[in-house]
Amino acid sequence: MTSKRTIPARRFIKPSFSSLIEKKRDGQEFTKEEIRYIIDSTLDGEMPQHQLAALLMAIYFANMSAQETATLTEEMMLSGEVIDLSHIAKPKIDKYTTGGVGDKAALVLVPLAMAAGVVVPMMCGVEHDYIISPIDKLRAVPGFDGKLSIEAFTKQLAKIGGAIVKQDENLAPADAHFYALRKETGTIPSLPLITGSVLSKKLAEGAEGLVIDIKWGNGSFIKDLEQAKQLARSMTRVGRSMKRRCVALVTDMNQPLGDTVGTALEVKEAIQLLKGEGPEDLQELILKLGMEVVRLAGVAGSTLSAKQTVQRHLSDGTALEKLKDLVKAQGGDASYIDNPEKLPVARHVRKLPAPKRGYVHMINASYIMQGVSILNGSTDKKGKIDHAAGVSEVRKVGTQVKQGEPLMMIHYNDEAKLEQALECFKTAYRLAPKRPTPPPIVVERVA
Amino acid sequence: MTSKRTIPARRFIKPSFSSLIEKKRDGQEFTKEEIRYIIDSTLDGEMPQHQLAALLMAIYFANMSAQETATLTEEMMLSGEVIDLSHIAKPKIDKYTTGGVGDKAALVLVPLAMAAGVVVPMMCGVEHDYIISPIDKLRAVPGFDGKLSIEAFTKQLAKIGGAIVKQDENLAPADAHFYALRKETGTIPSLPLITGSVLSKKLAEGAEGLVIDIKWGNGSFIKDLEQAKQLARSMTRVGRSMKRRCVALVTDMNQPLGDTVGTALEVKEAIQLLKGEGPEDLQELILKLGMEVVRLAGVAGSTLSAKQTVQRHLSDGTALEKLKDLVKAQGGDASYIDNPEKLPVARHVRKLPAPKRGYVHMINASYIMQGVSILNGSTDKKGKIDHAAGVSEVRKVGTQVKQGEPLMMIHYNDEAKLEQALECFKTAYRLAPKRPTPPPIVVERVA
Repeated sequence: MTSKRTIPARRFIKPSFSSLIEKKRDGQEFTKEEIRYIIDSTLDGEMPQHQLAALLMAIYFANMSAQETATLTEEMMLSGEVIDLSHIAKPKIDKYTTGGVGDKAALVLVPLAMAAGVVVPMMCGVEHDYIISPIDKLRAVPGFDGKLSIEAFTKQLAKIGGAIVKQDENLAPADAHFYALRKETGTIPSLPLITGSVLSKKLAEGAEGLVIDIKWGNGSFIKDLEQAKQLARSMTRVGRSMKRRCVALVTDMNQPLGDTVGTALEVKEAIQLLKGEGPEDLQELILKLGMEVVRLAGVAGSTLSAKQTVQRHLSDGTALEKLKDLVKAQGGDASYIDNPEKLPVARHVRKLPAPKRGYVHMINASYIMQGVSILNGSTDKKGKIDHAAGVSEVRKVGTQVKQGEPLMMIHYNDEAKLEQALECFKTAYRLAPKRPTPPPIVVERVA
Repeated sequence: MTSKRTIPARRFIKPSFSSLIEKKRDGQEFTKEEIRYIIDSTLDGEMPQHQLAALLMAIYFANMSAQETATLTEEMMLSGEVIDLSHIAKPKIDKYTTGGVGDKAALVLVPLAMAAGVVVPMMCGVEHDYIISPIDKLRAVPGFDGKLSIEAFTKQLAKIGGAIVKQDENLAPADAHFYALRKETGTIPSLPLITGSVLSKKLAEGAEGLVIDIKWGNGSFIKDLEQAKQLARSMTRVGRSMKRRCVALVTDMNQPLGDTVGTALEVKEAIQLLKGEGPEDLQELILKLGMEVVRLAGVAGSTLSAKQTVQRHLSDGTALEKLKDLVKAQGGDASYIDNPEKLPVARHVRKLPAPKRGYVHMINASYIMQGVSILNGSTDKKGKIDHAAGVSEVRKVGTQVKQGEPLMMIHYNDEAKLEQALECFKTAYRLAPKRPTPPPIVVERVA
């Protein structure tokens, strides 16, 4: 079921770690053997942490070539198990996003692709400030289990065509070492390191193709559009060099996606979207990403047929049925999908009043996320998530409001947390007298 | 005798180490408090090595401002003892060099300055590939002891006006931490880190002024002239900001200095120079550095009087007497200075023949150093130095030779080491048919 690296050992004289650091510091390119040696030495603990830290910072500044990045990704992938899904005949396509506030696209895209006959082996990786993982959202449904063994994962894929599970730690274990160190050494934002980290895990999941959603803006860890485009190019290039079909969309994350942020609230919105309803921005994003998935899978040839395929599975309810299959397969109570009103509801709902009249000019999505995290208790790490907490009816950029009208509705159970969360929500909104041009959802397509 | 930092604690909210790394990574300037916090956290082990390593690499790439470098230097100095020589009435001037092959200037300059009434509190720091420390050279004289307590050091300064000892580990202990990590993380060549490392120790020695010799070329760790000039400017600027008189000369290290490389051989050459004799390049270097010392000390006002002061003390033998005083004070047998023929002599002396006729076009000094290190056993770290080993009569750049004529004389005791050393010496020399222009010794003066 899994395969390990079987490249024969070549004659390679081990360089000193400091000479490797100096090489990168001076802007030189690593050979395949050197990158493999660095990864192996990281895994077996031979390379001291302080030398790896200096190397990571040198990579941050001196960068890596496309070839180096591809090698890094491949060697990181080969540091652990690589799932073999070749026994499943259907096309296997995965989706990855850098993550954004209110982004419930995964909850819609996975069942949508399943409905179109595409297998989606989705593992959800590292969590960070800007996202609630799709697994945490689905946990609003009683019984849902996001942790499967690799064996159970592949069995489920063969049976129902999709799974949304936590990243298995046997995949690309080198990345876990790198990532832990990157978090402490200011080397998270390096493009080749992000590419290697993400793709080494994604490509170990057994998919033949990958649709990538790179988000840029105040609710993404990528604040700069140019950097987002670079990352999109870096990832698709590396994916292709590893013989995977790859396409990336650079999309807007300068305000929350859709009308809700939370867990139960987002599941409800996802169900709407799976019925072909819901907020426009998400409808558009799902259409665009969905079209990429079915085209990459070869299920649809032309743009038109891809669009029709997506729209059909949303309007005829087949996609929604697949979400029920998935929830059920992973132990969840699927009756909650049929009856979303059974999902947890907060004791209190109050509005965030507009402080003056005007147009919503800007919403800093990261403040919205921060406020929601306070309300649902995910900031205190030991605590369970309060699934009822969150915000809904988020007034988006370009909306006109009168003084005192709600900018959003706040759902909460814990009065004590409200004040601090309110501060975040207030800070997030900026109103202005003139109507701004709402940003486009998809900025660029990189294939 | 020594003083500790006595700045009152201010309100300073400790930042996370990763936020400090990110700050420097993004090219921002540290405050005085932040630099102090980094140094304190390094000393007490609170800052993990991997985070300090990443920070050092960020400093390598993002650099430090003049103000930051001065603060770094001062805080590193204040991390340990600072020697107070204010009870000694005479002017106190030290000399520092980045080090070079065949550079025996310290052995001449210290007694020369002493003869001129200048106190020289010289501690010799970190050893690296390109230098034999003046202490190792003086150890060719039986009994000479290069290790003195701070108390004995200051007593000797008060008594005879000079000392050449090993760096005391109570001075700037933060630098020892930094330096050990820099060696392993490719961060040695950072200008602000070099400046901080060198000056924090030098300025803790109690001198009021410092003459700095920055060497550039194939026999220096600084290969680039522009970088040497930058380091000269960085050091003098920081020295001045710490209220020390400072002057730096950028000098040539693209061939060995003088005619000899070794320990006993270099002591003999130093004695010649102290008699106003010896090779021209070293005579010029010593004159220029010596003039800076006496002017900085206020012993001589004009350029002319500085030159006369230096020349007088070399020609009348007073400088040579001071070397005897120094050797004697540190336990050495001063009769070896009067009778240098008593110094160790090698069993074998053979020439390095010129492979063809022509002019000496280039001498890679680092290969000469490597060959000498092989012969005198300083490469096998446990072994004692063979004081007789080395090279003499080094034919310098611009010299015309016939085929088979000696390029240098090789002094050795251990036949087994000869072949490997010969390979180094041969590789070092390049002959060409045209006479090259010999490089100037002093390239620039920075004050």
